[in-house]
Amino acid sequence: MKAGTAILEAFYQAAGQFVRVDDLGRRLKLPATAVNAEIAELEKIGYTIESHPHFGYRLLGTPDRLTADDVKAQLKSPLIGSEILVFEETASTNEVIEHLAKSGAREGLVVFAESQTRGRGRRGRAWASPRGKGLWFSVLLRPTLPTSAASRITVAASVAVARAIRQNCGVDARIKWPNDVMVNGKKLAGILTELRAEADEILLAILGIGIDVNCSREDFPGELGDIATSLELETGNAQDRVALAAQVLTTFDECYQAALTNFETVVDEWAKLCTTLGRQIVVTMGQNRIEGYAQALDSDGALLLRRDSGQIERILGGDVVVERT
Amino acid sequence: MKAGTAILEAFYQAAGQFVRVDDLGRRLKLPATAVNAEIAELEKIGYTIESHPHFGYRLLGTPDRLTADDVKAQLKSPLIGSEILVFEETASTNEVIEHLAKSGAREGLVVFAESQTRGRGRRGRAWASPRGKGLWFSVLLRPTLPTSAASRITVAASVAVARAIRQNCGVDARIKWPNDVMVNGKKLAGILTELRAEADEILLAILGIGIDVNCSREDFPGELGDIATSLELETGNAQDRVALAAQVLTTFDECYQAALTNFETVVDEWAKLCTTLGRQIVVTMGQNRIEGYAQALDSDGALLLRRDSGQIERILGGDVVVERT
Repeated sequence: MKAGTAILEAFYQAAGQFVRVDDLGRRLKLPATAVNAEIAELEKIGYTIESHPHFGYRLLGTPDRLTADDVKAQLKSPLIGSEILVFEETASTNEVIEHLAKSGAREGLVVFAESQTRGRGRRGRAWASPRGKGLWFSVLLRPTLPTSAASRITVAASVAVARAIRQNCGVDARIKWPNDVMVNGKKLAGILTELRAEADEILLAILGIGIDVNCSREDFPGELGDIATSLELETGNAQDRVALAAQVLTTFDECYQAALTNFETVVDEWAKLCTTLGRQIVVTMGQNRIEGYAQALDSDGALLLRRDSGQIERILGGDVVVERT
Repeated sequence: MKAGTAILEAFYQAAGQFVRVDDLGRRLKLPATAVNAEIAELEKIGYTIESHPHFGYRLLGTPDRLTADDVKAQLKSPLIGSEILVFEETASTNEVIEHLAKSGAREGLVVFAESQTRGRGRRGRAWASPRGKGLWFSVLLRPTLPTSAASRITVAASVAVARAIRQNCGVDARIKWPNDVMVNGKKLAGILTELRAEADEILLAILGIGIDVNCSREDFPGELGDIATSLELETGNAQDRVALAAQVLTTFDECYQAALTNFETVVDEWAKLCTTLGRQIVVTMGQNRIEGYAQALDSDGALLLRRDSGQIERILGGDVVVERT
């Protein structure tokens, strides 16, 4: 563990209390002078740290800035986030992961960017990623899953994002099938799973997640304000992005493991959070358009749609519009 | 259509008879002098063409060499092979297609190589591609299919390769589930489908096919001779690679269209050709190992395996070993 991560972890465990310099030294296996130098580094990048000649140091404030050290210090997941990189700006975090995966990067690698110049959503749609306002990140996965079970990853991610937001920010986050996280009918987060696969087996999956954390009204110009929102707009308070990032990764680690071995539990939670069920909807995929009643999710995460004729269609993906009735 | 393709098409239609120079000129919309120059080009790359002052030209012999013109001249498919590239040597034709796909290459593009230095089979296994001895090629597909239906592509390709080989070379080609084409219990051809996809929708598929056409015993050293074979070894005659290539592409065009719209017909033909059904088998996928009786194929191309307990398992991929009973 890096020194910065270890110091921040000690501060978070102390929950606002002082931590003695010799305690920090033991954790870091470093002499007091080196501890003081590491503290100075943290202050330089924006952490507010009080020093006391006898009691040591305590953390008073964190910068609104993602750092790998800080996310790691709050992480409770064995796999997801085992390596974390943070870029000030990149074209797209999915693209960064794709490059790193080719050189053999390991499962669990997470790449954040403070801003993306070519952030993208499903089907190549643009995804706005204003600097420092959200969590824009990607996770490298190498699941042992048949290609046909790829939607499990999206399901696990939607559940993890919704659950982490509910727990951390106290808002009623819900899932719109298949992969949007909504609050009060507006989109708060999007999930994009990209695969490289053989016909029967997934080689690697890149999970891209975008969460509008502290976006302001100006970040959603025009009609976007009617369909998109942020956690700051919904709660009235700026949210701690680092804490939320750590919570989402920790929760996703749990949901991902469950998706691989015990997917029914994930589907159950998803169904409870899903706003699409029990409604008349229209699904479009390419030039196909299917209307019906969203009846249930099956064990693969497919949507079971009951048409007027009574016939059940198994819907694997597409764009959903809930009918206004 | 290129001049070379048009001339070869005229020769194949004439089936060994002479074609008049002014007929060729009309087809090519070129004067006689230009026709003569094109004929000289074909002779230069190895075609044996007889010339007669009155009757014109006739084709006596073709070189054992793949050319895009020649494959195209024998092709009867609207989509597959709409563009054809032939490389003398490349790392892997799948990699060439991947690069071209990024720059927007269109569905149906086919890339052949006379030899590959890094030809690969499923799960990164090496695939030997000795120069001029086989058909080593890849096809770019952009199917409108859910990701979970990716195995349809492999199924369509196995059926196409087996059917084309049966028709063209008169050998009893069979399919070993999921993707090997066999003759007399030995492997003759392999199929690798690689995907780029979102969780629910295929973005593009690269179909790689390797067929051991004129490989000699020396091309299968050691124990390989017990498990692999070629069309020349099975029939006792060198086979016309260009004619077979055109037949495989034409047949695949048909099977691919059927796989998109009317997959049951493809599954029916597959089941008839499949040697795996009706046997005790062992399937391994990663660390999983399942034994049972290969009972049937379902409408997605999955193998339905009946375990001793009577339970039916739906197998989506993996390596199959037929038990010696």
